Order: sequence, then structure tokens, then C-alpha cells
Amino acid sequence: MISVSAAITRLRNSSAVLVGDEVCALKACAGRVLAADIIAGIDVPPADNSAMDGFALRKQDWKGPDIPLAITQRITAGTPPQALQPGTAARIFTGAEIPAGADLVVMQENCEIGEHSVHIAAVGPVGNNIRPMGQDIERGAVVLTAGHRLRPQDIGLIASLGFAEIEVRQRLKIAIVSTGSELVEPGDEIKPGQIYNSNHYMLDALLRNWGFEVVDFNITEDDPQILADVLATASRTADAIITTGGVSVGEEDHVKAVVESLGSVDLWRVAIKPGKPFAFGDVMGTPFIGLPGNPVSALVTILVLARPFLFDCQGIDHETIVPLKQTALFSRKACGRQVYHRVRTGAEGIELFSQQSSGALFSTAWGDAMAVQQPDQDIEQGDSVDVIPFVLFN
Amino acid sequence: MISVSAAITRLRNSSAVLVGDEVCALKACAGRVLAADIIAGIDVPPADNSAMDGFALRKQDWKGPDIPLAITQRITAGTPPQALQPGTAARIFTGAEIPAGADLVVMQENCEIGEHSVHIAAVGPVGNNIRPMGQDIERGAVVLTAGHRLRPQDIGLIASLGFAEIEVRQRLKIAIVSTGSELVEPGDEIKPGQIYNSNHYMLDALLRNWGFEVVDFNITEDDPQILADVLATASRTADAIITTGGVSVGEEDHVKAVVESLGSVDLWRVAIKPGKPFAFGDVMGTPFIGLPGNPVSALVTILVLARPFLFDCQGIDHETIVPLKQTALFSRKACGRQVYHRVRTGAEGIELFSQQSSGALFSTAWGDAMAVQQPDQDIEQGDSVDVIPFVLFN
Repeated sequence: MISVSAAITRLRNSSAVLVGDEVCALKACAGRVLAADIIAGIDVPPADNSAMDGFALRKQDWKGPDIPLAITQRITAGTPPQALQPGTAARIFTGAEIPAGADLVVMQENCEIGEHSVHIAAVGPVGNNIRPMGQDIERGAVVLTAGHRLRPQDIGLIASLGFAEIEVRQRLKIAIVSTGSELVEPGDEIKPGQIYNSNHYMLDALLRNWGFEVVDFNITEDDPQILADVLATASRTADAIITTGGVSVGEEDHVKAVVESLGSVDLWRVAIKPGKPFAFGDVMGTPFIGLPGNPVSALVTILVLARPFLFDCQGIDHETIVPLKQTALFSRKACGRQVYHRVRTGAEGIELFSQQSSGALFSTAWGDAMAVQQPDQDIEQGDSVDVIPFVLFN
Repeated sequence: MISVSAAITRLRNSSAVLVGDEVCALKACAGRVLAADIIAGIDVPPADNSAMDGFALRKQDWKGPDIPLAITQRITAGTPPQALQPGTAARIFTGAEIPAGADLVVMQENCEIGEHSVHIAAVGPVGNNIRPMGQDIERGAVVLTAGHRLRPQDIGLIASLGFAEIEVRQRLKIAIVSTGSELVEPGDEIKPGQIYNSNHYMLDALLRNWGFEVVDFNITEDDPQILADVLATASRTADAIITTGGVSVGEEDHVKAVVESLGSVDLWRVAIKPGKPFAFGDVMGTPFIGLPGNPVSALVTILVLARPFLFDCQGIDHETIVPLKQTALFSRKACGRQVYHRVRTGAEGIELFSQQSSGALFSTAWGDAMAVQQPDQDIEQGDSVDVIPFVLFN
């Protein structure tokens, strides 16, 4: 058996960016991945501006609280100022550009404002209440780098630099193939021996949430010829292929033999629970990942093993997820494999779902996190254990 | 001044679910909010099934390793079984339904399989390797409740129960109105005194990420009549209105007066930094939130103050975000307000961005979290402090 971290390393060593670039309107770029660095073409702010509503003046022109200064212009945000006439003050508002010749702003609370002049009680040091040009970002600065997955604040930052469209990675196209003659689509009638297809819906939501495009092949019967046709088509239309189920070596599991006939596949013995069996290979050169058919196993393996690989294929610059530390409200003996328990976090600690069977998606819906138990770790109630909230896999 | 938690409470006390329900195809429901409980209409699994590839038999029919049992049927996943002939065994595969009359499954590794019969080395207890009907979910069980925001695993769970469509809340419609005559759309040329509109792009991405619909009013000039027209239209087309900027009491800030003329508005003095000024009220009965114009202030206030309110309006059953504890790599004196520092988390602790000005979105793009400093809390380097990774606001 290989460890979870060794399996991830092996997968990532086989990864490459599988997508090209495209230009995309900024408004449609949330969750997309930068294909090039974002370099500031302007200073932010683009000019010195006022941090307050008040008066802009030259410090040396202020001669004391009793000597008024003439108000020679009014500068609102968005209007270009005139150079300040020496010995006068300019009425100015927050965000408005500082006129040439002024070197500080006095907030209006310190002013007695007349019709044409202003008495100023006191002035601060040179530069007071002025946000200098380029304070936030200097022209030429690299503010975001290629591979960054764009969050709302990144979109805002790029907008503040004036870019209306940017270069991003094309969406990674993933074919999902659910195998199993027992599978029925939700909404259809279920007959004895059949179950509803849940993996397909779960994976579809997960992959789209990661910003990928899903190429949908629906349910494929456990028939070698049909499966071969579907996988060959998938390899031509998608960047990567994910199957669920049928990957064991049982008489009724055809995925392994079919993938072998079209490319290559290895059944990995990963020390992970739930998560057996997991397969990796290629279909006519297109990366192939075979997930287990049990929904919890499929979820754990796509989150833990496949996600880092797929993020690489999408060209996302990403780091290993760091678990949190929380108090276990349960005990569990080590089992020689790395176990991903479905748990619910709370003020007292983490609670284990009663039913940890790999068939029961209910545990993952009930829970908000997974507790990670190392292969040789006995967990005793009260221990501080590794926990990964599901939201960290976003 | 009121505290951050008092402000959130006050907002939430004014909230109500503002949307109706609609039926939606399950595949389109990721991120949507349940309008009704999901109640299992079937047992999961729907019948006893095999956890292994092997043989199904009745325990009392096994008479020892030397006495073979005739193989009288072959049950693959998805095919309905016949009742088991007494004194015989059924070849069975993982996931296949247990035939009536069988009470355990022996894994094939313990069997010597002949052409028409099988020698079984040993059998386990009754029920061995059988996943009983309803083990994961019993018919009639409430598996998810109204108000739940659907994650990928929830979509999978609902699919496993056979629902092809479900009742969800309609998307909350939010009008974003950016005020400021100095604002220019990205892509346009910037003139002296102008800056690019970033709030609008950031909020658009944020609100859509929360599953809301954005009604776009673009940039509105600081002109009372234009602003009144835009807000009145917004109140008729959206469930809630968010403005950025112009909400102070300065001569050039018209939002407050205009909203007052159309409804009501309060300028709140919240002990939050960044985050001034924050306004709340209504435009012709439609909830109104006035965010600050500085982009970092806008981000902090929408995440910390507005998000709980908006989630209530969308009918999301949500809990207060619990900060993590991390080691500060910086020192900061208390300032009487609750400060949200932009920080980056790392193995050693959290690092503070050098420039914490409320104008610099760069700090939020550089960082992956906010450190929360209480109004009376001095942070010393090495202290364990509250940290909220941005991803927790998803």
C-alpha cells in the first residue's frame, strides 16, 4: 500500500496544465484562473487625493487661527483641480485630487467656514490627510500572478487598475462517466436491484464549483463495448476523464480491462479509508481517474487525491490544505489506513457521525468536516485531531 | 458607537425571508437553498445488498468446508434476484440485491469455485457482508431541512433518494448602485481626478458567489435627482438595495438625503475598522444598505455586517462564523474599534499586510484571511488571535 501523501505526489508528478488561455470579460472571471500576471498600468491612487472633507492648502500659507484664507476653488471627487493660488485654500472633498501647490488637508471639523474665506484653527504636518499617488499600488507592480484563482476581492483589485478583460485559463473539461447497470437516473422509477445514481450529480456540482466544465456521459452500462465507445469519445472531447464504479478486478468490473485496451491503467492500493479502489491511467493519452462506486469513497478520493491533480491540470497555483486542530468527542483505534471520518464541528469539539459506512452520503451531508486519522494513530476522546472543514476544499 | 455584534443583531432583527419558492432541476441546484425539508421516500439501500463479491447463502445450509453447495443463480448489481433455493448458494457481486432466503454473504476469497458448485471454507455470523435495507437512510427520515444551502454532497444525497427536481428559494435579487462622479468603468480612459470603479465588480462577484442575483445599476453620478430615480427603480426590481459611497453627511454625499426622501435611513456608528460609514434603512419598503466607498471598508462591512442579514433575506439557515486561533507575527494597540486586519496565514503564524489603508484592495488580494482585534485588545507578537480565512465567508 502507498500512503495518501505518496499517492498525491505520484499523481501530481504526472500532471501538466492541460488547457490553453482565453480572454474573458472581467465580470465573468470570478473563480477563473489567471493565465498571466496582473501588472499595474497606473498608480493607485492615480494622484494625491484627500482622505477627508476639508480644505487643501500649503502649510507655510497658514499664519494662525485668526488670519483667514481666501477660498479660491471647490474640488469635488472626479473633477480636475486647478493649481492652488498661493496664500489661499481650496475646499476639497474625500477622494478629490489635491491641487498642485497644496501640501496638506485640514479636516472641516477644524475650520470655521465663511462665505469666501475660512478660519483654520490648526494645521497638521505636511502630507496630513493626503493619500499619496501610488500609495496602494505603484505603476509596474505585479499585484496577482499567473495561476491565481480569482476571488471577489481580486476581481475588485483588477477593476481598480482599469482592466475590463483579462487573460485566463480555459476551463478544464472533465468527462464524468458513471458505470453500473444497477444505476437509475433520479426521477425514474426504481426496480428491484436498482439504486439511484448519486455520484454523477455530486461530482458534477463539485467540478463546476471548482470552475471546471463537465462533459456529461451519464450512466454507462457495465458492458465492455459500450464502455469502450464512451471512453474513446470522452478522450476526444474532454481534457480528463473520471469514472465512478466498476474499477475493481471482479468479474462484473469492466472498467480496468477497457481502459487497458485503450491506454493504460494502474489499480492503486492507497492506504485511505474510505476510498478503495482508486485507479489512474490514460485513455488514448487523456488522463483517466477511476473513483470508487460508493459515494462516500468517491467523495473522499476526489477531494483528497484527485483535487490536487485536477487543480494542476487547470493550471491553478495551489497549496496543500492545512487541517485545523479540534478536540475529538469520540475514540477510534488506528486501522493501518488514513481514515477520513465524517464529523460535525461544534463549540465542544467534533462529533462523529454514527454510521461511517462508505455507502452513506448522509454522513457527509450531516457533517461539515472530515477528521483525519493517521494510519497508526489511536484517537482517544479529548485528543486534539486534524480536521478539514468541507469548505476548505472549495 | 455600537459594537459589531450589536450591529449584526440589530440588522438580523430587521430581516425577513424576502423571496418565494420555485421548483428547480436538481442539477442546477448547487448553492441553492432548500425551501422544504428533504424527506426520504425510499430506504437507502432500497433492499439488503451485498458488500462483497462472493456467495449468498443461508447460514444453516452450510455444513462444512468439504460439502459443496450448488450454485443456483448469479446475481449482478441491477438485476432482481430469485428466491434462493434451500440448500444452495447464489453467486453475488458487490451492490447486488440479496435473494430472499439468504442471510449472509461469504467473500469469494474464502471460496473454491467449481463449475456448478462452491466449497466454502468458513462462514461468518448471520448478516455478514450484507448491507441491510435502510441502513443509510430509512424511508420517512428528514435528511436535509429547509434553509440548507446545498453543497455537492447534498446534491448527491438528494439524487440518491431519486428526486430529479426540488423546491428551492428563489434567488435573492440585489441591486448594486455605485455612487460617485469620480468613478470610471474599467476599460474606459481615466482623466485627472477620476478612479476606476472596483466596488461594483467585487460586490457583483461576491453576491453571485452567495447564490444571489445581481440587478446592475452601474455607476450613478452624485446627483440627487438621478440617484432618486435609480433607487426608486431599484426598489421595484430588487429585493434589497446596496449602494457604495456617498453615504456620509458631507456636502457632496447625497445618498442619505435621497434615501430619506424615499423611505428611511440611519447612519450607524459601528465600532468597526475599516468600515465607516455604514447606513441601513429602506427605499419605498425595500431594505437598503449603504456601504462605505472605500473598497476595503466595503468588503469588510459586506462580509461582517451585511452577509448575516442578506443570508436571512435569502432564507439561509446559517450560523455565526467561528474564527480560528492563530499566532500573531505582529503587534497592534487597541483602538476602541473592532479591527479587521488583512493578513496572510502561514506555518509560523499570521503576517500583517504592511499597508492597512482602507483604500487598498491590494491588502485583501495579498491576504487569505482577516485577523479580528477586539476594541480593547492589545495584540502582542506571539499572541493567539482570532482569524477568519476569507473562504469561511463563502
